[in-house]
Amino acid sequence: MIIGVLGGGQLARMLAMAGLPLGFDFVFYDPAPDPCAAPLGKHMRGEYSDRIMLSRFAQRVDLVTYEFENVPAECIEFLSQITPVHPGAQALACAGDRLREKSVFQELGIPAPAFRAVDSLPELNAAIGEIGLPAVLKTRTLGYDGKGQFILRSRDDVGRAWVMLGGFSLVLESLVAFDREISVLGVRSQAGEILYYPLSENVHHEGVLRFSKSSPQDPEQKAAEELAGKLLRHLDYVGVLALELFQVGSTLLANEIAPRVHNSGHWTIEGAMTSQFENHLRAITGLPLGKTSVTGHSAVVNFIGRQPDLVALLGLRGLHVHLYGKAERPGRKVGHATLWSRSGASFKEGCRTLLSLL
Amino acid sequence: MIIGVLGGGQLARMLAMAGLPLGFDFVFYDPAPDPCAAPLGKHMRGEYSDRIMLSRFAQRVDLVTYEFENVPAECIEFLSQITPVHPGAQALACAGDRLREKSVFQELGIPAPAFRAVDSLPELNAAIGEIGLPAVLKTRTLGYDGKGQFILRSRDDVGRAWVMLGGFSLVLESLVAFDREISVLGVRSQAGEILYYPLSENVHHEGVLRFSKSSPQDPEQKAAEELAGKLLRHLDYVGVLALELFQVGSTLLANEIAPRVHNSGHWTIEGAMTSQFENHLRAITGLPLGKTSVTGHSAVVNFIGRQPDLVALLGLRGLHVHLYGKAERPGRKVGHATLWSRSGASFKEGCRTLLSLL
Repeated sequence: MIIGVLGGGQLARMLAMAGLPLGFDFVFYDPAPDPCAAPLGKHMRGEYSDRIMLSRFAQRVDLVTYEFENVPAECIEFLSQITPVHPGAQALACAGDRLREKSVFQELGIPAPAFRAVDSLPELNAAIGEIGLPAVLKTRTLGYDGKGQFILRSRDDVGRAWVMLGGFSLVLESLVAFDREISVLGVRSQAGEILYYPLSENVHHEGVLRFSKSSPQDPEQKAAEELAGKLLRHLDYVGVLALELFQVGSTLLANEIAPRVHNSGHWTIEGAMTSQFENHLRAITGLPLGKTSVTGHSAVVNFIGRQPDLVALLGLRGLHVHLYGKAERPGRKVGHATLWSRSGASFKEGCRTLLSLL
Repeated sequence: MIIGVLGGGQLARMLAMAGLPLGFDFVFYDPAPDPCAAPLGKHMRGEYSDRIMLSRFAQRVDLVTYEFENVPAECIEFLSQITPVHPGAQALACAGDRLREKSVFQELGIPAPAFRAVDSLPELNAAIGEIGLPAVLKTRTLGYDGKGQFILRSRDDVGRAWVMLGGFSLVLESLVAFDREISVLGVRSQAGEILYYPLSENVHHEGVLRFSKSSPQDPEQKAAEELAGKLLRHLDYVGVLALELFQVGSTLLANEIAPRVHNSGHWTIEGAMTSQFENHLRAITGLPLGKTSVTGHSAVVNFIGRQPDLVALLGLRGLHVHLYGKAERPGRKVGHATLWSRSGASFKEGCRTLLSLL
């Protein structure tokens, strides 16, 4: 079976690593000249708006999936007429537009930070009046890794925020003083079976995920699964979905969904019975899902901007390194490491050592 | 770093799967037009005797390793003058010639079945007189997966054996009525550090490995490690080495060595902290070795001749499938599955189900 992936970055690369042993071949559609997944399949270079190229792509593959939610909705709708696309257009439309996403949260009774749609400066001022400050002004579409966001702490910030983001369709969200950031990854098969991974506990810095660890037997596991389950069923979802949540006291607030494999689930490669990448592929190709249970403790640390020295890093026993084959550039994710340990004590010790090496 | 691999079969393919996340690139040297590792790197097509092509290959890579021991010794010697080759020429010379291998066993005090060199029919008859029947007549070089072997059960078999194998340099070995076939995999770093994996217990059928399972806490672990350690040190070995052993009562007899990653260690991908493939690469590139410890129980079943139905197979939770991208052909290894289970009871149950599906 030939799987077409929109996007040829590290998520596409890791999908291919998981899929080659299952006998799948990959075609990556990406406008970049040399995306990092390319060595693991065929690369078709084209814009997401180029219908001639997209139609050639669709005819070359048996089904299409994507590694990021900023693919234009029209691109997915167009491809869907030629070949199956998983997750479907509905999931992408929801995850690719923050306003629609938040409206779906509301519709499904999923608690989320207060928000208002903002398309003009007067609307922004009105929204601040209603939901208060601090708040985050975000573009409705195309944001990722903290890009397309501006934190408003006082009325003084409004001018600068508007200079940066005015002109886009925006959403103003209440900035939540959370106790913990977590994410739940679920996978849903074509037959509607759903499995969840143990929660991930996440630490972001400057909008970019730095550190995630598995949290087996988390007290919030069941509550998080219930929220993700509502989305998976409502969107008639096929594949892996990540739901990012803020925990405030005993309340979970939905932050955003990612209709794809997710950075906070990279520890599943070593730490879970079946990785998120393999389960995404199993789901979209109609194969039975694999077990999501874990043994021991896992943590993922992202390499941002540069690759650390491998000799020093791999001296830490129990560590696995995943480089993405990307050139180093400030702020860019160029790889990650997963630390796995059977016991909680040696895990904590290992995490400390690992963080000191980066 | 660019790693050159002699041979582009499934072992090379799985080496590349383990090496891409470490940032390595691969060039596979193989005379076949379309070896199954090719999609994971560059393929250079050439004969192992073609010095012009070999020298181009050596200049393209930072170091060379190999996935099978039937590479001509001269090829390795030639390459070694241009670029580092691990494991070294001495290891290959030993493993690639059954007479030399058995002489090394003898020299190091490693117990092994009785053997005699045989180059003529009178020598064969004399050897049978000395070591008795049943016995196995084997070609000194180029044998694998039961090829180049003939079992002599009575004097009546001598004629047919000679028709098939006469003309080759041969070894006659006593056929051992063993209680168990096991293998021990060790990895030795450039600095001389050695780590061992828990033993594998193996079942062969018609000379081809069908089934291997990890045997943690095996009573023979220490004895097997001592034998493998003698070889690793004597050969100044760098990389993964497999030593296949027959157990007869409480005695271990060396059957043969494989100077490479080995089919009986495929379960290490899912079942060990660091797979044999990653540890081979870490060793030959001078990186620190990774932990070889295991959790739970693992078994590998080979797919011989044909690929089983994936939907049925993956319905068995805890199973991982590795297809090699090779065309189906009678007797050919086209893939394997690894079953992993935390508890011994569910593992046994899973093994039964798995074997019933093949």
